[in-house]
Amino acid sequence: MSVTDRLSRQVDFLLEIDRLKGVLRQTLLTDGSRRENSAEHSWHVAIFAAVLLEHAARPDLDLLRVIKMLLIHDVVEIDAGDTFVYDEAAHADKAERERRAADRLFGLLPPDQARELRELWDEYEARATPEARYAAALDRLQPILHNLRTQGTVWRKHGIRSSQVLARNRHMVEGSPALWEYAQARIREAVERGYLEE
Amino acid sequence: MSVTDRLSRQVDFLLEIDRLKGVLRQTLLTDGSRRENSAEHSWHVAIFAAVLLEHAARPDLDLLRVIKMLLIHDVVEIDAGDTFVYDEAAHADKAERERRAADRLFGLLPPDQARELRELWDEYEARATPEARYAAALDRLQPILHNLRTQGTVWRKHGIRSSQVLARNRHMVEGSPALWEYAQARIREAVERGYLEE
Repeated sequence: MSVTDRLSRQVDFLLEIDRLKGVLRQTLLTDGSRRENSAEHSWHVAIFAAVLLEHAARPDLDLLRVIKMLLIHDVVEIDAGDTFVYDEAAHADKAERERRAADRLFGLLPPDQARELRELWDEYEARATPEARYAAALDRLQPILHNLRTQGTVWRKHGIRSSQVLARNRHMVEGSPALWEYAQARIREAVERGYLEE
Repeated sequence: MSVTDRLSRQVDFLLEIDRLKGVLRQTLLTDGSRRENSAEHSWHVAIFAAVLLEHAARPDLDLLRVIKMLLIHDVVEIDAGDTFVYDEAAHADKAERERRAADRLFGLLPPDQARELRELWDEYEARATPEARYAAALDRLQPILHNLRTQGTVWRKHGIRSSQVLARNRHMVEGSPALWEYAQARIREAVERGYLEE
């Protein structure tokens, strides 16, 4: 493939993923003004990765790999939509919907890059490495902090209980025991303030 | 500073920069539906950096450094606002407004991290290294592609001429001769299609 052909496919991919800016998550911005989209969420957790590195289970991990993972971890939602973490029904076919989306979206790139990003995405989904487990912990920490900052609006709207939040986010401990401890304290705080049901 | 104090300052910073999602740029999303905000723009150009690395003037550069720079390059806009690249008047005091914003925002972090991110931001602003020059080229390429995809709506609204676009973006050549060549071809295409005045 010529340099020109490669660049053309790369630009096609880069313009296609612009659509992630239109995929809305349940999470609100910290000022409560609107729902967050998955592109700005991905930006946010990528900065979490850089700033909170010292709290990772393995602080010597490959930060570039973590950040790349977080930048692309949600692009499949362009085709598959965002699945609310507490929506059990939607989780039934989530994996299959997202795999098809990964095939199509990463497949826009030149083959070597399609393979590289697909492997990164698979690694993230499987939480197969210290990098993936740290990235996944950050992806869970951010909405907990947003929920607390917005008086639990989203938790209350969906009637979420603290036991659900603990169960869904427990895997954080694998990526960062320190951040999981911090998150548990925030969850207790949310219960005390009435943002989250016991 | 204890681990708890560090984490508390880091979280303060991470929640404060959430406000970048509310800073609107002139650029439209590729579907033309609304203006882009600076957080999702930062996500987008960070992925540009990873995908287009082979076209950098120095493809052996430190990609992690480039991506960190792009993730934080616009956070000063939380205080200083976004300055439209073709707004000559607003550029007069842009540097001073943004320096004050950098002092405050990065100053929320523990001192070592405040220093690290401030140095990264200064490096980016000064285009002092191959990493900064490549990052700056991507920051210019993305809105050109968006403008082309949206029939030059923003260029036409502000009566922008191709000579202005060429002058403002010429520094792209320092970060990536290949991408500057590509951008010039897109600018010519925009003129031919009537998206941009000659």
